[in-house]
Amino acid sequence: MKANFVSKKIVLALVSTVLTTSAMAQQQAKKASSPKLTMADVLKASQASDWRSLNPDNTLYLELEKGRVVIELAPEFAPKNVANIKMLVKEGYFDGLAIIRSHDNYVAQWGDPSEKREFKNASKKVDAEFTVKYKQTDTFTRLPDVDGYAPQVGHVNGFAAGRDPKSRTTWLTHCYGAIGVARGNDIDSGNGGSLYAVTGHAPRNLDRNITVVGRVMHGIELLSSLPRGTGALGFYEKPEERTPIKTVRLAADVPEAERSKLEVFRTDTSSFKALVEAQRNRAGDWYKFAANHIELCNVPVPVRLVK
Amino acid sequence: MKANFVSKKIVLALVSTVLTTSAMAQQQAKKASSPKLTMADVLKASQASDWRSLNPDNTLYLELEKGRVVIELAPEFAPKNVANIKMLVKEGYFDGLAIIRSHDNYVAQWGDPSEKREFKNASKKVDAEFTVKYKQTDTFTRLPDVDGYAPQVGHVNGFAAGRDPKSRTTWLTHCYGAIGVARGNDIDSGNGGSLYAVTGHAPRNLDRNITVVGRVMHGIELLSSLPRGTGALGFYEKPEERTPIKTVRLAADVPEAERSKLEVFRTDTSSFKALVEAQRNRAGDWYKFAANHIELCNVPVPVRLVK
Repeated sequence: MKANFVSKKIVLALVSTVLTTSAMAQQQAKKASSPKLTMADVLKASQASDWRSLNPDNTLYLELEKGRVVIELAPEFAPKNVANIKMLVKEGYFDGLAIIRSHDNYVAQWGDPSEKREFKNASKKVDAEFTVKYKQTDTFTRLPDVDGYAPQVGHVNGFAAGRDPKSRTTWLTHCYGAIGVARGNDIDSGNGGSLYAVTGHAPRNLDRNITVVGRVMHGIELLSSLPRGTGALGFYEKPEERTPIKTVRLAADVPEAERSKLEVFRTDTSSFKALVEAQRNRAGDWYKFAANHIELCNVPVPVRLVK
Repeated sequence: MKANFVSKKIVLALVSTVLTTSAMAQQQAKKASSPKLTMADVLKASQASDWRSLNPDNTLYLELEKGRVVIELAPEFAPKNVANIKMLVKEGYFDGLAIIRSHDNYVAQWGDPSEKREFKNASKKVDAEFTVKYKQTDTFTRLPDVDGYAPQVGHVNGFAAGRDPKSRTTWLTHCYGAIGVARGNDIDSGNGGSLYAVTGHAPRNLDRNITVVGRVMHGIELLSSLPRGTGALGFYEKPEERTPIKTVRLAADVPEAERSKLEVFRTDTSSFKALVEAQRNRAGDWYKFAANHIELCNVPVPVRLVK
């Protein structure tokens, strides 16, 4: 008897261009009667104006042996911390340091394992920027979906963010790929000399407890697939287990020909709203039950390589 | 100027036994006035009766070159699929197969890349068990927290689950480490011959769309840290990129001396409720803002090795 192989092409398919024709009546009833778009449809129909380039003045290249991790900084959410990180980068602080921690389902973290490297012009202490004030006029594409960690959630300039209308504060959330400033118990004890990237299920409990400065736009798999550290909290126990950092550079300081040509899907457009809706209730033959919901950290903000 | 190194021991500390004395008044006001427990406190105070052993008849050992992945099956949620998987295991179906897919922030999947291996007694088609009926008397430790994907969420026998009281159905959720039965577009096209483990942010949109049969109890890092596949959907493009599976065995068929001695924290106890509360509003010096919320897939269900 031949094995019933479940084909690669259809297993757990994420996208499809075909309208569902599920035979399951009660589930079909939950689906809209008009043809629905998949994320692939939305992206295919997108215009040049639906995408934006990364600003090289706010883009970092973390260079590892296996490739480049591209990080977009969000100075509008953490101006002091971003400025200090950029100063550290300009000083060459990170060059030759290492990824010192890989904690399964949590974070990868880098910094100075020797604890000896000096700061030149960068500050040793930087004010906490766990939240910042927002103006009513600031762009915020709010998700209609309920969220347990924040009164409001949505996207600002491509970043997943929370908002509290009472205090008029906003903050970047700890979704997959978020970059944060490691700190000790004092709120101003972080300075950007040690950063982490979220590589597991979103630890939203960290929101408003630590300064988030941006997110990984490309190359997250170079961090998320690192062997896990076997020490406490996922720190590597032996120096040779660490992944060396060749350099961290600001994209603006890299010759244009060597820059990663990335574009990110804008989050202040009707196309983005269509994309969110496509993910909230998936079209296609595969999905039988429509969630009619999307959790903030499951909203994709696509990034593409351009020529 | 000496660098302000953020010590390993305090950076992003997850647990602490000290009550917070944060100076930030508005945040302190959000914290309870009585000493609060950390997860470490709860675990330290736990009794033998707070833990249970795994049933060897429902435990699988997925043996890879680098170690063993221990999977607990949940026949109460997917009796037919679990029975078929156990039959496949007994037939030696998985021995010598491979992990064929590693999709960043999503799943690792294994099965037969050749599509040629035969089923002996196991069935090629198994009924979908996306949800099952529950009885009002079934144990369910409900989380008080809001959830966008299910009317109710909580834990059943250590498994994170959703519930719909209207239809009296329950299902296992796609939290980190969940094991599901890959399928094609037909709901009964899965049979357990290809399984996946969630290795990223919980894809809860899959809930009620596919049969979940259990979860990884130990060794998830052997799956989550695999190099990502560069083909579509994270499939490996070259056979040599795949990770070979030595064997998959039922624990009951493994000599007792070779079994993993694991205990899992029970989820039907007051200790578990204390643990959830400890995670909902973290104690310790590090946390400054109390979330007063926990999302289902952030609730830990601890597993320990015993002698």
